[in-house]
Amino acid sequence: MPKFAAGVVKFQQEVFPENAALFEKLAQGQSPEALFITCSDSRIETGMLTQSQPGDLFIVRNAGNIVPPHYKGAGATTAAIEYACVALNVPHIVVCGHTQCGAMKGAMNLDALDALPHVKEWLSYSQAAVEITNELGKDLDEHARNLLLLEQNVILQLAHLRTHPAVAVRLARGDLRLHGWVYDIADGEVYAFDDANNRFEPVSKRYAAEVAKHLALHTHDHPAL
Amino acid sequence: MPKFAAGVVKFQQEVFPENAALFEKLAQGQSPEALFITCSDSRIETGMLTQSQPGDLFIVRNAGNIVPPHYKGAGATTAAIEYACVALNVPHIVVCGHTQCGAMKGAMNLDALDALPHVKEWLSYSQAAVEITNELGKDLDEHARNLLLLEQNVILQLAHLRTHPAVAVRLARGDLRLHGWVYDIADGEVYAFDDANNRFEPVSKRYAAEVAKHLALHTHDHPAL
Amino acid sequence: MPKFAAGVVKFQQEVFPENAALFEKLAQGQSPEALFITCSDSRIETGMLTQSQPGDLFIVRNAGNIVPPHYKGAGATTAAIEYACVALNVPHIVVCGHTQCGAMKGAMNLDALDALPHVKEWLSYSQAAVEITNELGKDLDEHARNLLLLEQNVILQLAHLRTHPAVAVRLARGDLRLHGWVYDIADGEVYAFDDANNRFEPVSKRYAAEVAKHLALHTHDHPAL
Amino acid sequence: MPKFAAGVVKFQQEVFPENAALFEKLAQGQSPEALFITCSDSRIETGMLTQSQPGDLFIVRNAGNIVPPHYKGAGATTAAIEYACVALNVPHIVVCGHTQCGAMKGAMNLDALDALPHVKEWLSYSQAAVEITNELGKDLDEHARNLLLLEQNVILQLAHLRTHPAVAVRLARGDLRLHGWVYDIADGEVYAFDDANNRFEPVSKRYAAEVAKHLALHTHDHPAL
Repeated sequence: MPKFAAGVVKFQQEVFPENAALFEKLAQGQSPEALFITCSDSRIETGMLTQSQPGDLFIVRNAGNIVPPHYKGAGATTAAIEYACVALNVPHIVVCGHTQCGAMKGAMNLDALDALPHVKEWLSYSQAAVEITNELGKDLDEHARNLLLLEQNVILQLAHLRTHPAVAVRLARGDLRLHGWVYDIADGEVYAFDDANNRFEPVSKRYAAEVAKHLALHTHDHPAL
Repeated sequence: MPKFAAGVVKFQQEVFPENAALFEKLAQGQSPEALFITCSDSRIETGMLTQSQPGDLFIVRNAGNIVPPHYKGAGATTAAIEYACVALNVPHIVVCGHTQCGAMKGAMNLDALDALPHVKEWLSYSQAAVEITNELGKDLDEHARNLLLLEQNVILQLAHLRTHPAVAVRLARGDLRLHGWVYDIADGEVYAFDDANNRFEPVSKRYAAEVAKHLALHTHDHPAL
Repeated sequence: MPKFAAGVVKFQQEVFPENAALFEKLAQGQSPEALFITCSDSRIETGMLTQSQPGDLFIVRNAGNIVPPHYKGAGATTAAIEYACVALNVPHIVVCGHTQCGAMKGAMNLDALDALPHVKEWLSYSQAAVEITNELGKDLDEHARNLLLLEQNVILQLAHLRTHPAVAVRLARGDLRLHGWVYDIADGEVYAFDDANNRFEPVSKRYAAEVAKHLALHTHDHPAL
Repeated sequence: MPKFAAGVVKFQQEVFPENAALFEKLAQGQSPEALFITCSDSRIETGMLTQSQPGDLFIVRNAGNIVPPHYKGAGATTAAIEYACVALNVPHIVVCGHTQCGAMKGAMNLDALDALPHVKEWLSYSQAAVEITNELGKDLDEHARNLLLLEQNVILQLAHLRTHPAVAVRLARGDLRLHGWVYDIADGEVYAFDDANNRFEPVSKRYAAEVAKHLALHTHDHPAL
């Protein structure tokens, strides 16, 4: 019995009517703030995690939040990146990994993936992160080594993103900003990559100025709150 | 100023604490009810649309909710389908298209996509739906023809799904059910494909029995409501 | 000493003169009734099996009567399907497997194919049929399991056929009919797939009405018989 | 009304019983004399043309009797060649083109193939033959130029055959012989390539010694004829 079908009916009865004005506006077009690339993992609920509304995020989800490097050909992720940049001119791209990621566990142990040949091939796009982790994480305990892999995978996918012409040209002219995140589903923390210092730090710290500014604006906009 | 970063901080302060028990449980593993394949379009908020919780849906999002037919090689969608079927044994797969889909508009007019070469190639996986629409929709007005394309694209992607071994084998032994949906973002309606009668009908009608059963159970679980 | 060269000389001396009028007509063009996709196996003689004349069947033969799912690119089978549908508008496509098929034996035992790497890769297009057979045929004896594989392979290739735009559009407008057959070379029986009831039955039963009609017409055309 | 289904029933009633012994023997295995690669064109009836019996020829048929050069990957023609050589050890391979070939007409005029994109890509494997024909055939009338293309295409596909490892190794040790033919469907003539003299001549002349020897043997075997 698919719960999700009942959920849609509940959405239609309880949620849509309250947001009818927003959906009417959105039927005219979309202008999302970001391309958000994250894992297919069911434990990531993008709307909840980012407290965003319909219309805010153009979303790509695949196993392992992976971005293949640019190549000539048809690819799900490649096409979506091109659409987000060229057709929608998004000013931000987020690559968001997460703890307990089955894809990344598989990447660390490819020999165990014989029953998943396509996953195995797909994870070749994370291989550099695995090798870096094996090098740099030799003396770490398992938890810390897993976290290192998640971070290195996000950094690698950001590098892959830069190989896409539509991304590279917008970065070159300052129209686009890249963000690398790792979401810890056990405690809700999100670690954001600080490119200049080559480290991850909590999102509240990494975006402190902007969060404060946004909260101030938000307060100004809605004085009653 | 990225609004989504402020949203994460809000999530951490207001939402996560209330759901801490759920997230603690989810940190042990996932067992989603469905693989949900939908478009990257920002106007689709999967959690809101299906009223689902973290853990409920394994989600693939790309431009046009497209499923390439099975082939040997590495592909985002192919790998995620394999993972959902083989590693997670999801009992349902939903392919969910939507109105106002930019990818489908592009598919109807590929000549206008010269600035989006990867999107153009990616949309070759929707070509049969375009050709069927041009044939069967000749006498329809633009709105009805667009809707026909969205429906035919979903039907085509379901056909592509059946070429994936992990899907085919589970269908053959009755362990998997496929669902084809089209979501109208302007009025909140979701049309679901009725395979036996080769037509789409409102989700509340298509799943009437299951919705009723679920709502009954739900009421039983929470008598206070 | 190639017997087939002597055969051609015999054809020129004994057969061509009797059919000169037919060949003269055929030199103007072809309008075949069907695209007939079958195995390269030498034991299948398409003209003998279908009692057809030159001009009747547009024929594709490869190892395993396989149809790769549609993809953008150059492929022998893909190109021939497109030509048969778009250039010749054939009203029927038959996929005809057969007993004792070496390709299907190989598909059941890929590990034994290390000396045939291209065959091994090619047989990935039959992988779903193998997996379904392993699931559903667990309790069958070897003969029945082999037959199940041949049937499942034909059903799978029909599913692949439907992913080709030229096929999909003609099916949608009712201009094309698909047929799935398994030929038993030991006893001459041909089993035809009954889509509605999801089973194979003897060709004489499956096409009873049409065979009767054709034989009646044939008798009418040639009253002397 | 598919005539070919009625044909199968006729085969079962009239032809199979007379050949039951042959088919019983063939059910044990196949040992064909040649791999015969020819066009899908309906006007070519391989059994009739070569006066062969079931079991004699392992047959590959595609649009344009094309053999892609060897490459790593899954291909219908590549797999069948490998199977014929490695698994069946055929001593001969014939590539047989024919007059009035729609594929070759298309190859001479690729711009007219916009509605057949896969055919267009597939014909890239005949491009060298087209270019040679345009060079060497400048001063020929249309009929002669078309014939030149058919011949050059067969010569090119023989060259492609030699790039396949399974073919090359058998040629090197003298276990395999290649044959290039062009069949004129209007008059029944078959022209065979004479490698040493780089020209085509009638099959009766090209194989004169062998045909004579075969006919003598055949007479010996069946003195009553």
